[in-house]
Amino acid sequence: MLYPNNIKKTTHKPISYANRGMALESLLNETNEYYNEKNMALIFKKPTPIGISEAVYTNHGRIIKNGYFKAQSTLDYNGIYKGHYVEFEAKETQSKTSFPLSNFHEHQLKYIRRVLNHGGICFVILKMNQFIYFLKGEDLVFFLDHYNRKSIPYSYIQEHGIVIKEAYQPSIDYLKVIDEEYLKGDL
Amino acid sequence: MLYPNNIKKTTHKPISYANRGMALESLLNETNEYYNEKNMALIFKKPTPIGISEAVYTNHGRIIKNGYFKAQSTLDYNGIYKGHYVEFEAKETQSKTSFPLSNFHEHQLKYIRRVLNHGGICFVILKMNQFIYFLKGEDLVFFLDHYNRKSIPYSYIQEHGIVIKEAYQPSIDYLKVIDEEYLKGDL
Repeated sequence: MLYPNNIKKTTHKPISYANRGMALESLLNETNEYYNEKNMALIFKKPTPIGISEAVYTNHGRIIKNGYFKAQSTLDYNGIYKGHYVEFEAKETQSKTSFPLSNFHEHQLKYIRRVLNHGGICFVILKMNQFIYFLKGEDLVFFLDHYNRKSIPYSYIQEHGIVIKEAYQPSIDYLKVIDEEYLKGDL
Repeated sequence: MLYPNNIKKTTHKPISYANRGMALESLLNETNEYYNEKNMALIFKKPTPIGISEAVYTNHGRIIKNGYFKAQSTLDYNGIYKGHYVEFEAKETQSKTSFPLSNFHEHQLKYIRRVLNHGGICFVILKMNQFIYFLKGEDLVFFLDHYNRKSIPYSYIQEHGIVIKEAYQPSIDYLKVIDEEYLKGDL
């Protein structure tokens, strides 16, 4: 496990990482597309739920004329890997010292517990201080149960999170972490 | 297994079933809500993917001014039950003699194979001739591989499908079928 403790403030341009600047969501979509094409897993981002106030019928089918975005009541990504149910959420924060739990909806935190209780593999991909962490749902739930805080200190994420190095393909190889952390006993 | 072979044409009003006339999708949403509340499973309909041609920002957030519906590239419902990945599609047909395969997109049929290969429980809930059938993905794939036909004869569905009787709560108890057909060996 890597502990990125030696980050320095600098006015110089930082070293170029693969895909730097690309939003976490785009990197994960690319990653899932890669897994899908290689038939390694079937994991996708769920479409954003939409509420429709007005729709019209045209020659090209039904068109939305007034629609709004609704909050996802579950996590953003789910699917199957090696017979296991997988569900996760991706979050980014600009904060350097702690990850605000307000980034989650309350029902999402409850939902993470429930997925774990049903035997799913559930986690958060967290981008913070230019590192990408795989934080197990179990470690998130442990924090919620043992600390009465509104944000997770970065030190907790450094201690419990597993760093995923951005790469070319797949961009964020989280299946590798699943293999190592959850499926070591399998075959 | 029930074989509804003795359906007679009648001009009389048919016997009243629970929830008669309610669309299959609504019944399944009700069913999933019931499973969710009882914490039996976490299975939901995926939101319909939307393409956005025009959006504006308002005081209430981002509003869609021109949007269109996109085809789901996977199946409509997925989630977790007793640690197992579950994915299924719901289909209705008015045809009495056969179920047209054109009800599926080509990529959905391929996707069913893939979910099965990854170890998921995958099936179709099929409403036909006023019966609701649970047709295993395996039986659908077998049909595709052995018959060069554009529709599945009703007799095949009667032979391989498992009838789910509509009930009050849950409306369409497909978990019971999963228990009996897939998980008999568990526990």
